[in-house]
Amino acid sequence: MDFSPQLLAELNNNSLYQHLGIEVSEVGQGTASSVMRPDPAVCWPFPEQPHGGILFTLMDTTMAWAVLSKVAEGQSCATISMEVQYPQRALGAEFSCRAEVVHQAGRVAYTRAEISDAQGGLVATAQAAFRVVKAHF
Amino acid sequence: MDFSPQLLAELNNNSLYQHLGIEVSEVGQGTASSVMRPDPAVCWPFPEQPHGGILFTLMDTTMAWAVLSKVAEGQSCATISMEVQYPQRALGAEFSCRAEVVHQAGRVAYTRAEISDAQGGLVATAQAAFRVVKAHF
Amino acid sequence: MDFSPQLLAELNNNSLYQHLGIEVSEVGQGTASSVMRPDPAVCWPFPEQPHGGILFTLMDTTMAWAVLSKVAEGQSCATISMEVQYPQRALGAEFSCRAEVVHQAGRVAYTRAEISDAQGGLVATAQAAFRVVKAHF
Amino acid sequence: MDFSPQLLAELNNNSLYQHLGIEVSEVGQGTASSVMRPDPAVCWPFPEQPHGGILFTLMDTTMAWAVLSKVAEGQSCATISMEVQYPQRALGAEFSCRAEVVHQAGRVAYTRAEISDAQGGLVATAQAAFRVVKAHF
Repeated sequence: MDFSPQLLAELNNNSLYQHLGIEVSEVGQGTASSVMRPDPAVCWPFPEQPHGGILFTLMDTTMAWAVLSKVAEGQSCATISMEVQYPQRALGAEFSCRAEVVHQAGRVAYTRAEISDAQGGLVATAQAAFRVVKAHF
Repeated sequence: MDFSPQLLAELNNNSLYQHLGIEVSEVGQGTASSVMRPDPAVCWPFPEQPHGGILFTLMDTTMAWAVLSKVAEGQSCATISMEVQYPQRALGAEFSCRAEVVHQAGRVAYTRAEISDAQGGLVATAQAAFRVVKAHF
Repeated sequence: MDFSPQLLAELNNNSLYQHLGIEVSEVGQGTASSVMRPDPAVCWPFPEQPHGGILFTLMDTTMAWAVLSKVAEGQSCATISMEVQYPQRALGAEFSCRAEVVHQAGRVAYTRAEISDAQGGLVATAQAAFRVVKAHF
Repeated sequence: MDFSPQLLAELNNNSLYQHLGIEVSEVGQGTASSVMRPDPAVCWPFPEQPHGGILFTLMDTTMAWAVLSKVAEGQSCATISMEVQYPQRALGAEFSCRAEVVHQAGRVAYTRAEISDAQGGLVATAQAAFRVVKAHF
């Protein structure tokens, strides 16, 4: 796939991203970057702290774009497994995520991602495996 | 903590749960159960399929209640690490989650959880470690 | 595959198992059990405590037999990812491991395992994903 | 701790490392490097391929040294949880591992590690959480 700014704008215009506050900003060859300005509703139990599951969602979806950047037309991907760690409290109004495909072997893609806060502090890291599958239409 | 139906109702009345469609239904001694009727907005990219990150969020928060059921007054918990697997596609309007504390050693609690669809099919499993910390007020 | 006692004895007669002290005791339909009497050399840095990596090895190999019990002739499997937790210190001369396939979707098998000490205490838990591949000969 | 070449030589002179073929080569401030020349016995079921559990052991122990490089006198560490992925087959007579502490929060240290083969190919990646504990003597 080729991810022009126009295509990215279309992709970002979905209900999940709007609901949580996610925006994918760049998709390269096996890499992807995104920004989250979390909806206040998902900052619970503490204000200005997106729930860990929302941070997970940001990494999972950004990794998926990194995988999709390398698959053939008509293919999609699905998460097999993912592990996340939370080294520091995630506090703030904006977070950035970067993901990359470490290796693809057959129909399994190995990825990693991390999220930084506005001060560059590392608030979440993850590694995940994805299956490359036929796209459903 | 003691989790009466009234306390549960108060706990469930929070912005994150309303936003995603989560409801904790029972908290026992080191166990917790919850139900998710996912908001359509989080069922993306496929309709009637909550995103994997939302399933993760359901397990993470249910595990946290299992941990909190066993800690002392004035204590809270924070996720250290969590791994999730998605054995089957999560399709439907209602999902149930069950979580348990496997063991607590000092200030670290070890937990596991799983999510079933309405037909009893296993759609997600997880294990996680939590730190028991002082509650912030 | 069918795992008769004789076949198990042959399978157990390999350099890795001898070196570490592993013995697979039973392979069912999507399940497997094993015992470890750890070689003293792998009980480091503490005597009578097998290293966490050796516990991991026991679970990984037992899960693999659970997967292999369900694949067709001429197929093998390889670990994609695995997460392990160590709820309690593993102390003793004998440990038992039980593994099961939770679900198989296409060429990916989802498994879990746990290790108990001689008193029944849970000392390690894991979940792992395996790829089903053609066997190499 | 300060890890002089002489101290490293003493640390490397233990039964586990001799048994598997592990040698820690450098411990810095929150980092550690090691080499594995796997004992042929642990290269099973395929010759010249150390078992995945042995690769896990190499990463786990190297991460532990990275953690120990930053703790106070009289402290040790224990693995809470660890996830490993195997992007490529690990083939060869020598492997190198590098580990680093990503962050330490209170008594929990967050780490990652990877193993490369002699051609620089990435054969295993991991992230792990460790508890910092009082050393046992």
